Amino acid sequence: LVHDRNISERELIRRIRGLTDNGSHEAIMGIGDDCAVLRGHGNSVWLITTDTLVESVHFDLAWHPPRQLGRKAANVNISDIAAMGGRAIAALLAIAVPDSEIDWLDEFLAGFVEALKEQGAELVGGDTVKSRDGTVFNVTIVGTMEGPDILYRRGAQPGDLIWISGPVGEAAAGLALLKAGAAGQAAVENKWQHLVKAHVDPEPQIVIGRHLARSGLVSAMIDVSDGLATDLAHICEASGVAAVIRATDLPVSEELAAAAGYLGCSPLEWMLRGGEDYQLLFTAPADREAAIRNLIGDKTGRTIYSVGRIEAGAGVLLHLPDGRRMDVTYQGYDHFSSGRNQSD
Amino acid sequence: LVHDRNISERELIRRIRGLTDNGSHEAIMGIGDDCAVLRGHGNSVWLITTDTLVESVHFDLAWHPPRQLGRKAANVNISDIAAMGGRAIAALLAIAVPDSEIDWLDEFLAGFVEALKEQGAELVGGDTVKSRDGTVFNVTIVGTMEGPDILYRRGAQPGDLIWISGPVGEAAAGLALLKAGAAGQAAVENKWQHLVKAHVDPEPQIVIGRHLARSGLVSAMIDVSDGLATDLAHICEASGVAAVIRATDLPVSEELAAAAGYLGCSPLEWMLRGGEDYQLLFTAPADREAAIRNLIGDKTGRTIYSVGRIEAGAGVLLHLPDGRRMDVTYQGYDHFSSGRNQSD
Repeated sequence: LVHDRNISERELIRRIRGLTDNGSHEAIMGIGDDCAVLRGHGNSVWLITTDTLVESVHFDLAWHPPRQLGRKAANVNISDIAAMGGRAIAALLAIAVPDSEIDWLDEFLAGFVEALKEQGAELVGGDTVKSRDGTVFNVTIVGTMEGPDILYRRGAQPGDLIWISGPVGEAAAGLALLKAGAAGQAAVENKWQHLVKAHVDPEPQIVIGRHLARSGLVSAMIDVSDGLATDLAHICEASGVAAVIRATDLPVSEELAAAAGYLGCSPLEWMLRGGEDYQLLFTAPADREAAIRNLIGDKTGRTIYSVGRIEAGAGVLLHLPDGRRMDVTYQGYDHFSSGRNQSD
Repeated sequence: LVHDRNISERELIRRIRGLTDNGSHEAIMGIGDDCAVLRGHGNSVWLITTDTLVESVHFDLAWHPPRQLGRKAANVNISDIAAMGGRAIAALLAIAVPDSEIDWLDEFLAGFVEALKEQGAELVGGDTVKSRDGTVFNVTIVGTMEGPDILYRRGAQPGDLIWISGPVGEAAAGLALLKAGAAGQAAVENKWQHLVKAHVDPEPQIVIGRHLARSGLVSAMIDVSDGLATDLAHICEASGVAAVIRATDLPVSEELAAAAGYLGCSPLEWMLRGGEDYQLLFTAPADREAAIRNLIGDKTGRTIYSVGRIEAGAGVLLHLPDGRRMDVTYQGYDHFSSGRNQSD
């Protein structure tokens, strides 16, 4: 989900966090990571995450067909389970609708349950209420995994490499194409299809997340929901470190480059601050580079990308080809493009 | 919560239920009871419930001070845990607000966490997003209990007595007083205080629910959130039985009678269709009447009320002093007062 990124939201989260009680008897981790973690039997833990999707804020019914929206409502939350290294087992869905649009909801529900089934998870509870205006969904996903394998946002160390499980910025490009009207029904069949799907029907990276968690090779992990610059800033804040992204190491597909040219946009901006990619962003000691690349290549056939390095300090810096380093912490490319930068 | 009671919502819930997979490996109970039930270690289970509160539909900021609203947001969901016989251990809170009202939210959060602490539960996760219009909260509560003790809606048998853990209709009376402007700040200090509190700051009946679940004396249970007639209809539908409520056995406090007189309302209407009481509604074999009354009296000092009897058949009937029986299934007193009735 594209969350409100203003200070007051982070301030609010800080206040909520001040009210929580981490490390108590039953909760291992409270607010401050992708999921809450509750102790299960033996080494096993339960992962729980909740997320709200608001019409016109998080989705636009003009380009989210109900079936794909149902899939996305499930998958963006399953992605939070992936971000810890777990697997999803159950979901609860609360729907607030202004009036009863049964046909639309049937399709939404079919997509929601289809996405759950792809993960071996099931719909176990829910709630339907009237809303005053617009549709609001709340999704709660329950997952499980072995406790010692959990990958938190904290844990990144200076010297670690920064990895992404796939290209970022594609969902932002897809959204830009949809907004520009360049990806209508006919166009979806053609060259923008992959980018539009990245926005409309993203895939949670459960399989890669589970392999990484069980490998013991990784020091910190999160999913890219709010954009690379912001989500990497979460890892840095939780770990007490800085991060440097090398602009030239970010993978740019031909499609992304073509869409950027077509719309006159910057692919770098999409890659840094485009949210909703739901790729995994993780860090690992540099000497495990080959082991990680081989593990994921062997198990999944997927290419993953090393895009920078953790350093001592704080914040997220973008290393440009000319050697300059721009602070892109949280504010992402907006902050960078407004001219405030730091050279070092 | 006062849910939308129209057919389309029940139709929607039926459709959602058709998509769920009860009795699968990890879920013991899916949609169709107060909580979803997931297998835990050994005999223990996890209870999960989620609920959405929409401004102007479920709460009115004019008479819900933020601290009490925070308490209520927690407690109405904790009540769903009580309705199975469990205890609450953790909560997740998702907040959608149109803009940042930090002071208001601070008070709301303080009330939310206060109510959790009263139950030994803690806030472990959450989400904040922007809403387009109005405030929407979603609360997910996780509870636990021993699996064999779970009290479902199904299980009521002909001949069972119908019980309530305390008076119903008081929250509806409190709301009517607030709507009539008869319970402003000064008036809250006086004779309506108890009724107004029943609406603004209801108590979940966790302690009574746990005693009942562990006693093995009870056949079915639910909490009164949508009104006695509707929630009893849920038990009847799930159990395949009918219920007869004796109007003269419903407890009417002096305050309730006085408020009804003051406003020119029917206490019976409040008792039958007034939602949000959050008392427990349960059934048990008639020969356990003394055992149940003594158990709750000894353990809690509370008086509970036997208000009717389960019969073979379907639907909820109201037995009036003149011997007539009115069908009040789901539609509650509205249905009754519209003149449609059945004599038998």
